[in-house]
Amino acid sequence: MPDEVRVRAYDIIKKKRDQIPLRDDEIRHLIAGYTDGSIADYQMSAFAMAVYFHGMLPDELAAFTDAMLHSGEVIDLSHVAQKKVDKHSTGGVGDKISLPLAPAVAACGVPVPMISGRGLGHTGGTLDKLESIPGFKVDLTTDDYKRLVEELGCCLIGQTAQVAPADKKLYALRDVTATVDCIPLIASSIMSKKMAEGIDALVLDVKFGSGAFMKKHEDAEELAKTMVDIGTRMGRTVVARLTDMSQPLGRMVGNSLEVIESLDVLEGKGPQDVVDLTVELGAEMLVMGEVASDLDDGRKRMRQSFNDGSAKEKFREIVKAQGGDVESLDDRSRLPLTEGRAEFKAPKAGTIAAVDTEAVGIASGLLGGGRMRHEDDIDPRVGLEVLARIGDKVDAGQPLITLHTADKGVDAALERLASAFTIVDDDVEAPALFSTRITKDDL
Amino acid sequence: MPDEVRVRAYDIIKKKRDQIPLRDDEIRHLIAGYTDGSIADYQMSAFAMAVYFHGMLPDELAAFTDAMLHSGEVIDLSHVAQKKVDKHSTGGVGDKISLPLAPAVAACGVPVPMISGRGLGHTGGTLDKLESIPGFKVDLTTDDYKRLVEELGCCLIGQTAQVAPADKKLYALRDVTATVDCIPLIASSIMSKKMAEGIDALVLDVKFGSGAFMKKHEDAEELAKTMVDIGTRMGRTVVARLTDMSQPLGRMVGNSLEVIESLDVLEGKGPQDVVDLTVELGAEMLVMGEVASDLDDGRKRMRQSFNDGSAKEKFREIVKAQGGDVESLDDRSRLPLTEGRAEFKAPKAGTIAAVDTEAVGIASGLLGGGRMRHEDDIDPRVGLEVLARIGDKVDAGQPLITLHTADKGVDAALERLASAFTIVDDDVEAPALFSTRITKDDL
Repeated sequence: MPDEVRVRAYDIIKKKRDQIPLRDDEIRHLIAGYTDGSIADYQMSAFAMAVYFHGMLPDELAAFTDAMLHSGEVIDLSHVAQKKVDKHSTGGVGDKISLPLAPAVAACGVPVPMISGRGLGHTGGTLDKLESIPGFKVDLTTDDYKRLVEELGCCLIGQTAQVAPADKKLYALRDVTATVDCIPLIASSIMSKKMAEGIDALVLDVKFGSGAFMKKHEDAEELAKTMVDIGTRMGRTVVARLTDMSQPLGRMVGNSLEVIESLDVLEGKGPQDVVDLTVELGAEMLVMGEVASDLDDGRKRMRQSFNDGSAKEKFREIVKAQGGDVESLDDRSRLPLTEGRAEFKAPKAGTIAAVDTEAVGIASGLLGGGRMRHEDDIDPRVGLEVLARIGDKVDAGQPLITLHTADKGVDAALERLASAFTIVDDDVEAPALFSTRITKDDL
Repeated sequence: MPDEVRVRAYDIIKKKRDQIPLRDDEIRHLIAGYTDGSIADYQMSAFAMAVYFHGMLPDELAAFTDAMLHSGEVIDLSHVAQKKVDKHSTGGVGDKISLPLAPAVAACGVPVPMISGRGLGHTGGTLDKLESIPGFKVDLTTDDYKRLVEELGCCLIGQTAQVAPADKKLYALRDVTATVDCIPLIASSIMSKKMAEGIDALVLDVKFGSGAFMKKHEDAEELAKTMVDIGTRMGRTVVARLTDMSQPLGRMVGNSLEVIESLDVLEGKGPQDVVDLTVELGAEMLVMGEVASDLDDGRKRMRQSFNDGSAKEKFREIVKAQGGDVESLDDRSRLPLTEGRAEFKAPKAGTIAAVDTEAVGIASGLLGGGRMRHEDDIDPRVGLEVLARIGDKVDAGQPLITLHTADKGVDAALERLASAFTIVDDDVEAPALFSTRITKDDL
């Protein structure tokens, strides 16, 4: 590589190593050089490790995120007059919120340009779930995406290769250099991709607990604050909600199964926690989108959209526009399902005190419903129905989970579930779904 | 790369990052994988940065050094019955000690198998100095090296490509990832190369002060202790001497010029500091080589070798065996010299309180006597004669340095020297050459 580039990269790594604040132009140089290959992987991984130890200053992090954002295509949605608002979740088991949320918010009049990801490890991905609707296409062109956001107020697609290539490269590098679990790098990765969607505002659902990437509430809170700060510095309105992921969200875990539960919500039914979270995040989006006067008004409008059918109707329009089988939304037997069943039963009587939620996600993956590596295929039919929640009293032998099985992984899944539930003699209080709310005023 | 290798490298990086002690087999896996390319540069640089922050445990570091040593050829000198002893210096300006030391120690009966390096930055290298003797070859085969150590008790060569390839690769990587100035990595790099020479014992000259890599005494002491510990764990006898590098060593800086000063020492002359340091390090080597009963006896034998001509005679044999012009050792006009002269004069009267020794080294480099990059050529003829030392009283306009110049760099060198001497009104005490002595009992 040219000497000058090499030397400058060296100095940038050294500064971070020695906790000397980096200037904007140095950060831009680093990301631009990394994107075009003039700064090598081995320099970026050393930088990432130095960031692991020293973090990044708020100014540095905003510049870093902005540089990653501008390493690729930034979608321009200025032709849509209203405020565009999206949601991002840090992911969890059974988290299908995007599916009922996006159409409901769009039905209430706030455009939702939503670019989602695929599942990996113990968590599912919105794209995988959507694709269990026969024919549903997530790889639309940017032009189609822009048109649908304008025409329908919503579009649900996957990230194109053109979005934040620096982040893609860095993410793959972090994955092999033990620099994944680093809050500033997680925050900038998420925010650089979200900012590329062309949004004005964003609600963040930051999970904590046994099924979340951030197991500890304090880490989730730090991540939330970091992301709110980045977004604010980049001129967006960002609100973060910390929510519980100490047990699976809702009853269904798996791709088709989560679509079914989402349809329940869109029809004004569905499990309490999924409905409440959808309503709450939607209320935030309606306020930021200047459609609701306050959160209470937003909540009312969200519930109304489920009850009057407008949310489901919007979902129908989206599914149709993106090539999916609209009839499957009413005739659920058209969704990919399996008849295989197995049951995981309570090994003893008592009260459920804790769930190893990650184990539940992995069990679904073992049945074929998730992927351990990016290149794995998934089976949309399989998954789990979680029948008991923390605080529930159960009898010995009572089914706790119904497995929807196909041709593999049943024994392995049952084995993984064997110690997933902690059952105690005492009473246990159900955990609250909602915790801290963070806005820019809380930084 | 194969998944298993990738995952293991990840785990090793993560353990170091999280300060979990690494097992020997993990360290061997890391170095073996890095040497054969199955572990990537970007993983090793992340590991090195984690080491920068957390250091290495003594056990880890011994295993790491041993793995680097065994990544390449380890020379077997077991055919030489006596204890083989070498010296390593961390380098400084005007440090030509190896040239008089190795022949003197060999003349006293202790074999010195010495593999040296080239100069870089502000410090010179033993190989470059030796090569200013016309015809002197430093790239002998391992067989010739082994034969000369046996026949002459000394051989002065450069590192072959077969010695510690993992260290070579890692050193180049550290150089572009801001992980050079990291004591455990410096210590293991030095020791892995020295252990490959086939030695039983080693004296370390660890410099501190303005011309040393370790400017601070405490850092030099930590490096010294680290190296003594590594060597001891690897079954060698190692003694470290901390010596002052707050001003150039001796009077001469430059390649031919340092050969001339070395010849002075071998002839029982030469500047006090160069003689004293040669005698002291030699005494340590004679004790470790079981030729001297104690340091005092060693010092006597060293001085005797200069006075009775045996040290110079040994040097003559070495120069002859390695293809050098033996006559140049007596007729110094046969060495490459230049007639160009310039002077740097004291800008004011007073006492010399400090010397920016690094600036002196760089000034010599600017004249052509050193290299900034590995691929630069050097001019053996040029250099500096340092005429004043800390504590000396000088008049305004009195020459402090005579520059031996060729065709370039005179103005730049004079400019670099402009602020190199701190001159004060008060009296200043000359710094002591010798500081702490560290053996395994001091760890």
